[in-house]
Amino acid sequence: MKTLFKNATIINFINENINVIKNGFLSVEGEYITYVGSDLPEGNFDVIKDMKGNILMPGIYNCHTHTPMVLLRGVGSDLPLDKWLFEKIFPIEDKLTAEDIEAGSYLALMEMVSSGAVSFSDMYFEPERTCEAAGLAGLKANISRPVQCFDPNENPTDSYRIKQSLSLFDNFNKAYNERILIDFCIHAEYTCDEKTTRYYSELCKEKQGNLHIHLSETLKEHNECIAKYKKTPTEWFASLGAFDSRAFAAHCVALSDEDMDILKAHNVSIVHNPTSNMKLGSGFAPIEKFISKGINVTIGTDGAASNNNLDMLEEMHLASVIHNGFSQDATLMSADTIIKMATLNGAKLQGREKCGNLLPGFKADIVAISLDAPNMVPCLDAPALIVYSAGRSDVLMTMCDGKILYENGEYLTIDKEKVYYDVRKAVERLYN
Amino acid sequence: MKTLFKNATIINFINENINVIKNGFLSVEGEYITYVGSDLPEGNFDVIKDMKGNILMPGIYNCHTHTPMVLLRGVGSDLPLDKWLFEKIFPIEDKLTAEDIEAGSYLALMEMVSSGAVSFSDMYFEPERTCEAAGLAGLKANISRPVQCFDPNENPTDSYRIKQSLSLFDNFNKAYNERILIDFCIHAEYTCDEKTTRYYSELCKEKQGNLHIHLSETLKEHNECIAKYKKTPTEWFASLGAFDSRAFAAHCVALSDEDMDILKAHNVSIVHNPTSNMKLGSGFAPIEKFISKGINVTIGTDGAASNNNLDMLEEMHLASVIHNGFSQDATLMSADTIIKMATLNGAKLQGREKCGNLLPGFKADIVAISLDAPNMVPCLDAPALIVYSAGRSDVLMTMCDGKILYENGEYLTIDKEKVYYDVRKAVERLYN
Repeated sequence: MKTLFKNATIINFINENINVIKNGFLSVEGEYITYVGSDLPEGNFDVIKDMKGNILMPGIYNCHTHTPMVLLRGVGSDLPLDKWLFEKIFPIEDKLTAEDIEAGSYLALMEMVSSGAVSFSDMYFEPERTCEAAGLAGLKANISRPVQCFDPNENPTDSYRIKQSLSLFDNFNKAYNERILIDFCIHAEYTCDEKTTRYYSELCKEKQGNLHIHLSETLKEHNECIAKYKKTPTEWFASLGAFDSRAFAAHCVALSDEDMDILKAHNVSIVHNPTSNMKLGSGFAPIEKFISKGINVTIGTDGAASNNNLDMLEEMHLASVIHNGFSQDATLMSADTIIKMATLNGAKLQGREKCGNLLPGFKADIVAISLDAPNMVPCLDAPALIVYSAGRSDVLMTMCDGKILYENGEYLTIDKEKVYYDVRKAVERLYN
Repeated sequence: MKTLFKNATIINFINENINVIKNGFLSVEGEYITYVGSDLPEGNFDVIKDMKGNILMPGIYNCHTHTPMVLLRGVGSDLPLDKWLFEKIFPIEDKLTAEDIEAGSYLALMEMVSSGAVSFSDMYFEPERTCEAAGLAGLKANISRPVQCFDPNENPTDSYRIKQSLSLFDNFNKAYNERILIDFCIHAEYTCDEKTTRYYSELCKEKQGNLHIHLSETLKEHNECIAKYKKTPTEWFASLGAFDSRAFAAHCVALSDEDMDILKAHNVSIVHNPTSNMKLGSGFAPIEKFISKGINVTIGTDGAASNNNLDMLEEMHLASVIHNGFSQDATLMSADTIIKMATLNGAKLQGREKCGNLLPGFKADIVAISLDAPNMVPCLDAPALIVYSAGRSDVLMTMCDGKILYENGEYLTIDKEKVYYDVRKAVERLYN
């Protein structure tokens, strides 16, 4: 199958810098991009899509989420964090079955492909269902089963969570043509202990895994760790070997300068979750500082229970404007920086070679953004339009590995009616 | 013409408190709502619309914008404020013709009705074109011609800006069945002088006008005023009689506590513009303090040149989350508060009786929000869904004065092709 996109405004990266090609051509053969440029490429094509000036950009990476939590969308909104978590969220999560996880995963995939995401980094229970859903629906995903330890007497070798994590790795890593990768995961410093973290980090290193953690999401959590261990959460994780393999950390609102240096020295990527950090009152992750230190910074939505959606275009918008406001500097974040965080940097975080860019030889992970709606007129600056003006409804098409997953409002790989039916059944049981 | 909406999730206000009716009915006759409640109202209807559980809410008020600036969308993004304004915005504005203003106004109206706005408070040049556009397209609008004074020797009675403002008032106030109201407007303290402000405020009082101003948008502007006059901008306006008639002030990022008390004492409404304040690095207007002092607080998009869209649902989302983040308090803003700011409070600011609520006897200004997209599933909390999960694409219908302006993606009162053609011509001339 050979597809040619013509007359497109193409956004890609040349030597890490954003580049815009007007009236461009892009060809796809099978899973790969074969041509990007200003000239009509040679050859015959099965499908020719006239983009009529619309934008083609790399597929978006949602680098920290808990997909099945879409089933808890809007639960306990506007409560303080501890009441929200302990009185509202945990009691519902306790009732979730594997079937619920599957229904919620599919609902989340619909949200993500319809807002331009081709890949996501997930942390949740019953992750096999999410692996299968993402695999069958044609997305990429880095999926993990969070490890926690609440029993100080538990021997890590007996931890069912670690066993589940390892079996997930053995059963699903590189599944579905390597679209599904399995990450290791320690939920957070405050939900784990030293021996479990040390043991599991060693396992992660042995398997050459990629470790997903929550890190210094709030100043309270950060300071409580210092009081308990005389170490920041970053120092604590580092001292236990958690950063001796590839790793990435969500939130990072309360990092010290020294923490940032530790993360940089260990090539740990950071996921910025602006809506969740704002909504839950956690504060502002100093992402401009992370970037200036050379850390790979990406963007994630967090779960829908604290967002309350999985819309990466909205997340990019927040990431682009709130730090200017907080630092009172209109030049702090640029549209170019935000687009790179949401695409190329995401592929790096997930350890995906030849992904996150629109160049020949790269995987054909492509989002088409329409310029038809009034909020997209005129198109004077395509990257600015995407970051400051666009919304989910401007996503015309989402393609992953050369396969169209969403186009013109239709889900081509997900049965919307079945998902809505399953979600309705789950919600009726969970909330009655 | 009698219309019945059935099976709707209706959001309205009872005694200023938000109220949700499930499986509700709402009837409209001519311009007015005739019934809202849980029972099927008596009578025959010309049209019956089955809402299938979708949400009906009051039409949204965009209380501070500069509509024709959609033609400058994306110009000079990511530049510092003064470079952006003097090197990019002003040179283009200098070239704008009345025809451009008309084309830009219509483009802005398309953006607004498709994102649920039924009314807006505008401040720009050649406002007659905006009045006609909004009037013909069926929206409500409070429109003003900004008064400025850059020549200290100019006699206010000779000011062509004041003459234009008065002639606008005489020609268009209460036009189009009172949907168009004309406001008075002083652009800002830093662009006007004492004698002009005093003279024009007196005229506003005589005509029982409503005065639209920019106020303490940045700390720099606020402090420069104190250095110049030994008064804050609020004290300066108050001392010149600007608040002796009805008035409303946009931005208010840098108000002192005493300023807030002055505004409250004079019943001055405030318009919060979160995206613009963030994007331009102005900072956080302490809206929770304004609210606690009993000030009428509303929301606006500001112009598209500093936003870069006119999407009030996006603006409501930002207003709902950024203050929690800034104050590190997850309970600071609630969905209910935000919806009221964007609807009922907006109608109060504009001086519109029997508007901004869904109750019998009120103008039929109604937005229907679809629950069909995955980001709106499940519907556990309708107000939270609107503020935290919804986007422009979830707007199913926008009705103003009983007339449907937008439905299922179609503009029923605006010729999209003509607007796009006119905008393209304007853009070609402005940027070449």
